[in-house]
Amino acid sequence: MTSTPHLRPEFFIRLFFTQQDMIGPGKVALLEGIARSGSISAAGREMGMSYKRAWMLIEALNGMFQTPLVESARGGAGGGGATLTDAGRQVLALFREIEAAATEVNAERLATLRGMLANTPPGNNG
Amino acid sequence: MTSTPHLRPEFFIRLFFTQQDMIGPGKVALLEGIARSGSISAAGREMGMSYKRAWMLIEALNGMFQTPLVESARGGAGGGGATLTDAGRQVLALFREIEAAATEVNAERLATLRGMLANTPPGNNG
Repeated sequence: MTSTPHLRPEFFIRLFFTQQDMIGPGKVALLEGIARSGSISAAGREMGMSYKRAWMLIEALNGMFQTPLVESARGGAGGGGATLTDAGRQVLALFREIEAAATEVNAERLATLRGMLANTPPGNNG
Repeated sequence: MTSTPHLRPEFFIRLFFTQQDMIGPGKVALLEGIARSGSISAAGREMGMSYKRAWMLIEALNGMFQTPLVESARGGAGGGGATLTDAGRQVLALFREIEAAATEVNAERLATLRGMLANTPPGNNG
């Protein structure tokens, strides 16, 4: 829905555990934003996401795993703070490791593919 | 757009060379269908895709690379036959290798993630 650059890494990975349960760059970036900002609404805002959508994604993630990934104090308007649980930190780290390993193991194949393109991939502003 | 199971592998990879130029499971499955059936329309039909959409995806792929990936004899109604070029076969093979290598190198991390899920991933009919 959003075209924020960090949600479109060159090597885009999404894991479908079932047809419903999936995790990809969007949810993972949201987890990272929460770890950084301590707030679901701030993390969503950074990504151009409504508070409602950010909450829905976190609820989906929390329901997907045996242990919730995000713990939040539902305060007044705008909600209280939010932090990643141990499970949340583990899932975040695993996903980033999966991305890094997938990219690294395929470095040569990716270079071959890039070399076959009609247009040289530009920088972020291309 | 379609939820054909082979378009949703557990380990879903899409490569964004630019914000416009991308290749993922849909286009790759279409290339495979063309290699098998010798026809863009038949390959699209197998995937529940309109002829027009299948053509648009192939045009996009052909324009994305220095050499077209699919060669077609535009015949009468429904079009003539279509075959993969050497470049087409190479891109198809590279993408499948990238998927396989990414999955294999991450086998342990994926097992850890799966072990943390609330629901055991079911089979295809789950």
